[in-house]
Order: sequence, then C-alpha cells, then structure tokens
Amino acid sequence: MNDTLARLQAHRSIRKFKDQPVPDDLIHEIVRCGQAAATSSNIQATTYIRVRDRAKREKLAELAGGQAYVAGAGAFLVLCADLHRARAACELQGGTFREGMTEHFILATVDVALAAQNCVVAAESLGLGVCYIGALRNHPQEVSDLLELPRLVYPVFGLCLGYPDQDPAVKPRLPLPVVLGEDRYPERLDLLPDYDAQLHDYYHTRTGGTKDSNWTLEMKALVGRESRPHMRKFLADRGFTME
Amino acid sequence: MNDTLARLQAHRSIRKFKDQPVPDDLIHEIVRCGQAAATSSNIQATTYIRVRDRAKREKLAELAGGQAYVAGAGAFLVLCADLHRARAACELQGGTFREGMTEHFILATVDVALAAQNCVVAAESLGLGVCYIGALRNHPQEVSDLLELPRLVYPVFGLCLGYPDQDPAVKPRLPLPVVLGEDRYPERLDLLPDYDAQLHDYYHTRTGGTKDSNWTLEMKALVGRESRPHMRKFLADRGFTME
Repeated sequence: MNDTLARLQAHRSIRKFKDQPVPDDLIHEIVRCGQAAATSSNIQATTYIRVRDRAKREKLAELAGGQAYVAGAGAFLVLCADLHRARAACELQGGTFREGMTEHFILATVDVALAAQNCVVAAESLGLGVCYIGALRNHPQEVSDLLELPRLVYPVFGLCLGYPDQDPAVKPRLPLPVVLGEDRYPERLDLLPDYDAQLHDYYHTRTGGTKDSNWTLEMKALVGRESRPHMRKFLADRGFTME
Repeated sequence: MNDTLARLQAHRSIRKFKDQPVPDDLIHEIVRCGQAAATSSNIQATTYIRVRDRAKREKLAELAGGQAYVAGAGAFLVLCADLHRARAACELQGGTFREGMTEHFILATVDVALAAQNCVVAAESLGLGVCYIGALRNHPQEVSDLLELPRLVYPVFGLCLGYPDQDPAVKPRLPLPVVLGEDRYPERLDLLPDYDAQLHDYYHTRTGGTKDSNWTLEMKALVGRESRPHMRKFLADRGFTME
C-alpha cells in the first residue's frame, strides 16, 4: 500500500480545529486540485465560495443547525452546482439554454462532488482536516441569498478546512462483499448483523458508552422519514425543475 | 507543492489502455479507498459492480455509444447510487422507507461521486489511468437490466481503469477567479474570451487542427439542447420520484 492509499483509508471528519487560519495560497492550490478533477463535457459546473466575513460565517453556522465549526474552522468553502455559467456561455454563442433537464442537474451535482473530493484529498495531503457540511441544505434559499447566488446555482454542501485539534478514530465501513458485486448486483444483507455489531462498538467507544446505535438503526432514522422536503420546491424555484 | 497536489493537477482521462488486466487486489484496495470517502450520515449509498464477463462488457461499450475502451480497459466498474440497501436496513429495524425524496436522491448521487473520485485518486497513485463513462446514462434501463440492479439503485457512471497506453496533455481549466468567489458569487464572464482562446489552442494541438472549438461553443452544444430526456422517467420508474 502506498502513502496515498494509506491516507485515503485513514480519512475521518474533523470537527475541532486549531485557531489558525489556512493561508490563501493553500486554498488556491486546493481549489486548483478541485478544478483538475474530471468534469463531464468539461462543463466545470463547480463554483467555490470562500466565506471569510465573520457575520456570514456565523450565519452559515446557525443555518447549518448550529455547527460551531462552520464558523470556527480555519477556512470554509461553499461548493455550488452552477449552470448559470454554462447558460451565459451558451447565450454568448447565440444559443438558448435548455432549462430544467434532470440530466443537467445530475451532471452539475456530480461535478461538484468529484471536485470537492479532490479538494479534500489535497487538503489532507497538506495536513489539514476537513468536514463536509450537508446541512447547508437545511436552509438552501437563505444560504443562496447570503452568498448572492444567481438562479441556476445551488449550494450542494460546505467544506470546513483547518488544522486538526482532535484525532478521532476511523469509522468502520460496510464489508467489501456488501458493496462490490461481480457482473451483477451483490445482495449480501446476510453480512449486515456483523457490521451492525462492529459499528455499535465504534459508537460505544467514541462516545464513552452514551451512543447506543448501529448501521441499520441509523438507516431507519435517515430514510424512514422525510428528509429536507423543501428541496424539491427550492430547486424548482432556482431553475432546476427536473424534467 | 507536494506529490499528491502535483498528481491531482496532472489528471487527464485515459482512453487507450495496454492489454493488461488490473490485479484483483488492486481493485479491492481502490474500492476500499472509495469506501473511505466521507458519506453523509454514513449511508454508504455507493455500490460498485466490476464487470468481467466479456459479453456484458461488449454490451456496455455499445450502450455507451460505442466507446471501445469500456470493453478494452483492464477493469471496468459501474458505480451505482443505492438506496435499496438503506431501505432493507430500515425495514430490518421495523421502519418504513420514505420513498421519492429529492434529498435522498441528492445524498446518494453525491455519495457515489465522492467515493468514485477517491477511487480515481487511488488508481492514479498506482500508475493506472482512468476514464469516467457518463454515457451509461444513455441507456440506464438497459444497463440496470444487464447488471440486475434492484429498484432504488441507478447507474450513475462507469469507470474504466487500466495501464495507460497514451500520454495526453492536461486540459486547461477556467481561470481561478471565474470559479472562486469570496463571500459572494463571482461573476467574471469577462475572463471567458481568454479561456476560449486557450481551449481553442488546446483542441487545435490535440487534434492536429481538426477540432475548431472553444469553451463557450462546447457549452452551447451541451446545455443549448435537451440532454438525456429519458432520465426523469427512468429515475421515477426506479423509485426516484423526486418529491
């Protein structure tokens, strides 16, 4: 195993950072790494907004459900899926943007995630810790207003970056045969009880015995109820009507 | 700049591979790196299907618009967004899966892309080249049938992996100020003409003068018309109704 594989497999989210800013040139290198990721038809639908303004950082932390590290991390980026730029380019060439395609929504969303993960790998190689903030989608319209996002742009998630001030354990993942099939879909629900036990132990240790859960329970909490039911209307209002 | 940053920024898609298989243990390490990526609420909604069967590889190459490297690459993975597994877990705990949420669709799609990009970084660190195959979405139902994907699973893209048999140039990206804003959305369309000129030269050199295009023209071709209009119905049929 080489250093890159070892570092990728040692990833864990960092939610406690030293009070130390991340230099501008590192942020720029990290974003350049994001830009270097594969991008479907070269659409480059990722826009990065670095939030430095204290009041905006505090507001974003509040909108994300009170996650203090959104305000406190050395740097905070909001990663946006952006069809506004492609539309402008299309119109500069005399074309008419075809609004509302589900495919374009997928393209832009995938684009952001590929770029973001390159940013994460780059940041971790520089000794930084990171944490994705999906909770920006709790109040996506407010986030959009705060950052003056035009129509056809939506905030997919945030990314905290900073020098780690904690050293959490790596969370165990599903056994390989559950997620990797050969020539067809792998149906290996028989392996879930072992993973549940393993994850139960992980939570127990991490929380000093206060969190009593496992994977199947977490999934019930996640997909056994509505989740951000405002997203459909928010996206439609912003031009992502999903035809 | 460290080795990781340099390698990330040197990425280019590889579409010509040596006739040399990728050993199983490398594929397993690469998938483990994919699994190690951040995953929202630990949903682990990524399922990897390695396609070895010759007939299935040939069929996938055909479905992807005749991209021969889909059949010829040392290895080929189909990366699927998977809510089937989370539903099964939810039901094992006595819950009722809440089907059709847009948010769950975003969660699963982002999950796949984060994991995939970790796979790409891992593969490139091992000397492999890669190429994403978004064109699996040309015929997503046929791909799903071929790989026996259950409902609530959809193929997001494929990934060719193999030992490179070409050494293409890195494609230039948009200038940093176009994609990186501070505290608000960056509107820098004024910088597009320079990038158009740069990309025009890149295409010209790469194709020996036969491709005469630039970024704004490419965007007009991409978003100035319908794109995979079947996606909405396909996804709805598979349980992703986007409420």
